[in-house]
Amino acid sequence: MKKFRVGVLGATGAVGLEMMKILAEREFPIEELVPMASARSAGKQIDFNGGKVTVKEARKEAFKGLDIILGAAENDIAEAFADDIVNAGAVFIDNSSAFRLNDNVPLVIPEINKEDVKKHCGVIANPNCTTIVSLMAVKPISDISPVETMVVSSYQATSGAGINGPIELMAQTKAISEGSDIPAPNVFQYQIAYNVIPQIGGFNDNGYSTEEMKLMNEGRKIMHLPSLKVSCTCVRVPVVRSHSVSIQLVTKKKVTPQEAMKAVAAFPGDVLKDDLPNSVYPMPLDTSDQDLVFVGRIREDLTNQRGLMLWCCGDQIRKGAATNAVQIAEEVIKTL
Amino acid sequence: MKKFRVGVLGATGAVGLEMMKILAEREFPIEELVPMASARSAGKQIDFNGGKVTVKEARKEAFKGLDIILGAAENDIAEAFADDIVNAGAVFIDNSSAFRLNDNVPLVIPEINKEDVKKHCGVIANPNCTTIVSLMAVKPISDISPVETMVVSSYQATSGAGINGPIELMAQTKAISEGSDIPAPNVFQYQIAYNVIPQIGGFNDNGYSTEEMKLMNEGRKIMHLPSLKVSCTCVRVPVVRSHSVSIQLVTKKKVTPQEAMKAVAAFPGDVLKDDLPNSVYPMPLDTSDQDLVFVGRIREDLTNQRGLMLWCCGDQIRKGAATNAVQIAEEVIKTL
Repeated sequence: MKKFRVGVLGATGAVGLEMMKILAEREFPIEELVPMASARSAGKQIDFNGGKVTVKEARKEAFKGLDIILGAAENDIAEAFADDIVNAGAVFIDNSSAFRLNDNVPLVIPEINKEDVKKHCGVIANPNCTTIVSLMAVKPISDISPVETMVVSSYQATSGAGINGPIELMAQTKAISEGSDIPAPNVFQYQIAYNVIPQIGGFNDNGYSTEEMKLMNEGRKIMHLPSLKVSCTCVRVPVVRSHSVSIQLVTKKKVTPQEAMKAVAAFPGDVLKDDLPNSVYPMPLDTSDQDLVFVGRIREDLTNQRGLMLWCCGDQIRKGAATNAVQIAEEVIKTL
Repeated sequence: MKKFRVGVLGATGAVGLEMMKILAEREFPIEELVPMASARSAGKQIDFNGGKVTVKEARKEAFKGLDIILGAAENDIAEAFADDIVNAGAVFIDNSSAFRLNDNVPLVIPEINKEDVKKHCGVIANPNCTTIVSLMAVKPISDISPVETMVVSSYQATSGAGINGPIELMAQTKAISEGSDIPAPNVFQYQIAYNVIPQIGGFNDNGYSTEEMKLMNEGRKIMHLPSLKVSCTCVRVPVVRSHSVSIQLVTKKKVTPQEAMKAVAAFPGDVLKDDLPNSVYPMPLDTSDQDLVFVGRIREDLTNQRGLMLWCCGDQIRKGAATNAVQIAEEVIKTL
């Protein structure tokens, strides 16, 4: 079996570390793994597949000879290195939002549009975490009749802001429990312990946050539905891991809750959790540290005859980021 | 000035205690205050207006001579005593959901429909907490053009489940912080610490929880909009106090965000918190222990040209329950 040289850009962050864990878990055919980060982290030893690997400084020369680079860095780093990666002959599977809407960059959730991988020109983008979790729930219904509009409210975990998000949450709850001074917010705009914050990212002129616009813009591209309309409210909640999403969706023709449940249950990567008499529904505690998106509370929309309501949860670091990127890499190596 | 004999039924619960605090705060003209609870609590001394009052057992004879009974008990208690209260000649202002939809029972948010108080036949109902917080935000917009549909997702505080809700949350976070065994859920269906639970109340056959149906059913009555349609998802979040609500609303004619902001800012009981460049928006930490509903994130709905999106927070024990009941009592005594 052919093996590949894989780099992870931003290997010391929450998503980067998870990517390495998932590469090992899924037995990705690796010849050599090269974790890369800023000069500050170079030389650091990190765990990989039962052994240790040494972090290299991310720089132009480091990409030579690699087949695939998984990007887990911020937009500015992704932008700084994209050309170098492509020129070095590697495929860049990037988790930042820098290239997601570029015409020549496929934006892929493998269960939904893996055929788009083939159109890449060196860069493939991994969608936003809330977008992935939401579309995994919506796509099987949209396959019955195309979704036209969605009204969405999210309940996003603190780890979506990186490793320091849950650390800040935990430090604040601990201080409150001990009666000591509550550490000032640093990762989040305000205290997140016992609070919810309706801001993720900066705000655009239209009153939506950058995070809130992603589901519409990325959803149109991923589902090949250029006229999809989405109104989203993204909210940070004091959860450690896994995003939850409340969705109202209107389809072109009516889809019944029973048809939707059947489609969700049959969709790869989804689990139907919908048994109300037994209080079975998705919750973030149950979806953490695994790859499946849980979908439930599927019911008629009382405001629109072609509408459905649903609730879904998924681990935004795994399926919402790292796992999805590795799944894309699995598609890419079929073409190499 | 005329003074009144006031009873509080369920005086030892979260809402009952708050009602007594608010009666004192608002200098309600009280001749005598009689806290009432089950036989188990009878004889207990509780604080009132700088002094102490003694809890009486709630029984038929106890209502004699009282002018107003504020009800802070569950449905079964409210149902058991309503006739006795009315027959004793008192007005029953009840916070339970037992009588809210009865035709001869006014359901009142004083800022919205205080004139309905006059139609009472002895019982006036206090609306559901999420209904009050949501309608306080929506009513000024609906006054410009009537709201036709709403899609709503709530972020409800643990104290909405009573005094033991936050105690359970705090005990769980403390155990997690100390690395000890997490106390089993008792108030909530599942662990609420670092989790969110999409169930409040039991479920109806239509897949909605009892809590989720209240906003439509009560909203129609309070706003005198019999054809209002609401699809609601009610979710418990690890917050101590104050409910938050994400709302999409569609009005008969288009209302611009600027018109909506102006109307909200001018509405008694509301505060407009909407200054995105400075990260000013409503948050539950900021609305706790006071009576105003904070409204913000007002923006165009991207799915419907006649739609608006907004976010609001309010203290569900105060404006969402106790304060609203005392405000109703203030209207009632104008007629006595």
